[in-house]
Amino acid sequence: MRLEREIGLLLRRSRAISARLAGELHPDLDGAAYGLLSLLRDTGPLRASDLVARLGLDKSTVSRQVAHLVDLGLVDRTADPVDGRAQVLTPSEEGAARLARIRDVRRARWESDLSDWPSSDVATLADLLRRLNHLGEAREAEVGDDGCAR
Amino acid sequence: MRLEREIGLLLRRSRAISARLAGELHPDLDGAAYGLLSLLRDTGPLRASDLVARLGLDKSTVSRQVAHLVDLGLVDRTADPVDGRAQVLTPSEEGAARLARIRDVRRARWESDLSDWPSSDVATLADLLRRLNHLGEAREAEVGDDGCAR
Repeated sequence: MRLEREIGLLLRRSRAISARLAGELHPDLDGAAYGLLSLLRDTGPLRASDLVARLGLDKSTVSRQVAHLVDLGLVDRTADPVDGRAQVLTPSEEGAARLARIRDVRRARWESDLSDWPSSDVATLADLLRRLNHLGEAREAEVGDDGCAR
Repeated sequence: MRLEREIGLLLRRSRAISARLAGELHPDLDGAAYGLLSLLRDTGPLRASDLVARLGLDKSTVSRQVAHLVDLGLVDRTADPVDGRAQVLTPSEEGAARLARIRDVRRARWESDLSDWPSSDVATLADLLRRLNHLGEAREAEVGDDGCAR
């Protein structure tokens, strides 16, 4: 199916881009670290176990990435205000600043790349993707927490 | 930008789906392992170093995932026909069979989800994504091997 192939291509390119952006955060970081910092910025503070669930990566990969980001001073560990024995993760001031710089550059590229497109095409693509995403959400709502279809 | 948000949502959903599909391959596997087996199936045999470059993940993550897939009997290591001292990776017969079953189910779901869409909308979405992917490829062609824009 042609649509499936184009979506696959988009996903592969996006992974390659994440890897490159991670290198801009710090030369030692990989694509998973970029995704992790990004998620903490958008939805943090989070516990490490929340990251495992949301990123779909195994616990040891997430622990290693978190330790690395903490060592580099890009992520802070603090006591969970809800449960003082647990720890939550947030981007450090430096981590948030580096991420913001990268996002600004990305957004400017997007805008420049799409400046040649008729605005109606950009709107149509956004609309169709929104409908596609809603299809996916509707399907996921049919699947219970145990992963079984109802 | 609305388009950027919808693409971000698609990527996040796709990561969550990869994690679930990995669990269908084997309960111990994560989303990175699914992506790795899928890449080996589509473009293998590959050396571990090729996987590092293509997946944008760090060497230790890839080594661990490969070792895990080999232990589970889903990936085979063989001597590289070009350089007998090196090793290449391919899905085992069992690995390829499990992946094919999962892909068949996914394809059937796609077709059923999209069966309500006018075929002109499916074609428009594929066309617009193709144009978006070409934009990205054109940009990447401007970036040299050292990661610097020309």
